[in-house]
Amino acid sequence: MPSAEPVFLWTATVTLLIGFFYFFAAFRVGNFRQKHGIRAPATSGHPEFDRAYRVQLNTLEQMGIVLPFLWVAAFYPIGWAWLAPLVATVWVVSRIIYLAAYMADPDKRLAGAMLGGVCNLALFIIAAAGVARIWLIPHAM
Amino acid sequence: MPSAEPVFLWTATVTLLIGFFYFFAAFRVGNFRQKHGIRAPATSGHPEFDRAYRVQLNTLEQMGIVLPFLWVAAFYPIGWAWLAPLVATVWVVSRIIYLAAYMADPDKRLAGAMLGGVCNLALFIIAAAGVARIWLIPHAM
Amino acid sequence: MPSAEPVFLWTATVTLLIGFFYFFAAFRVGNFRQKHGIRAPATSGHPEFDRAYRVQLNTLEQMGIVLPFLWVAAFYPIGWAWLAPLVATVWVVSRIIYLAAYMADPDKRLAGAMLGGVCNLALFIIAAAGVARIWLIPHAM
Repeated sequence: MPSAEPVFLWTATVTLLIGFFYFFAAFRVGNFRQKHGIRAPATSGHPEFDRAYRVQLNTLEQMGIVLPFLWVAAFYPIGWAWLAPLVATVWVVSRIIYLAAYMADPDKRLAGAMLGGVCNLALFIIAAAGVARIWLIPHAM
Repeated sequence: MPSAEPVFLWTATVTLLIGFFYFFAAFRVGNFRQKHGIRAPATSGHPEFDRAYRVQLNTLEQMGIVLPFLWVAAFYPIGWAWLAPLVATVWVVSRIIYLAAYMADPDKRLAGAMLGGVCNLALFIIAAAGVARIWLIPHAM
Repeated sequence: MPSAEPVFLWTATVTLLIGFFYFFAAFRVGNFRQKHGIRAPATSGHPEFDRAYRVQLNTLEQMGIVLPFLWVAAFYPIGWAWLAPLVATVWVVSRIIYLAAYMADPDKRLAGAMLGGVCNLALFIIAAAGVARIWLIPHAM
């Protein structure tokens, strides 16, 4: 089982963190929908709801980058196998910052968004390095 | 190969179910777009289209919770390894109920949505228990 | 490690391609948001931004079909194990066509969208065949 390796356990653990944060972000949206009486299928109607919904959807949009790279890196780890799960943990922190700032004032979201973007790029480089290594040195697997 | 284990085969099978349901939900949106002459990039314009699109997007939003937890549980199964794929199957059923109710009247979506939410929470607990077990008892792997 | 098998390496490589294309599509949206001064949480306000955002979100919507099927096919490959990663590569090409056509004129998006849809369907059939084979002939694993 690949899951016996530490990199896999760290990857699974941070995936739970990511999923839990996103679950929380989605749950808030449902609450604000009820609080402000915004009837489906509308996805806007009150600033608080609109912000919470954009935070949720933007988080999902970013997960489309983070999760594939994180798991490719788990299957094809580089020498510092802990690096990808660590970067993904920083990404979760960037999302907490993003959520708090966005709810206060959408114009203040950039710090969290940029930290998240740097994590995305780092995860791509780490995953690509791990895969490239096996293409170049097949017996390294 | 981890795929030789029954929990993995069940997980893969229910993943096909989830993907197929979502594919169907997305396909309907394309049809309603054509039927009601809603030109891209608009994502609203007729109640039937608006409802179908929200069902599709909400399904994708929920898949961001279900799929990560389901696969973490496949790599780190608890004693009842069949439980996570079973809960995910119930989630697919909740989505069928949600789609049918939402298309009839968006205000009637809550039963399906709440059943799906319970499945999300159950999958998180199952996946977290599976991962926590390995952190606490490493040689259990 | 399942990652030692060629089908897995091809799957990981095309997953990097998919992630990178999507990352690029999302990055463009951020740039157009700034260029046209569209303030969050708005997700429309200028045709160029609106098109770029729909391309990004539609790509994410399609990734909800492609990635699960692609990875199920990696764990349960059919005889031509290279077929699923190849189809997913064609899917990335269909997305490049889609992006270029959509930005020029949303009404011209259909060729790319239909090629992508054919890839989705092919990936479902390949993944379902791989899983069905193990249900029918368990010792084939």
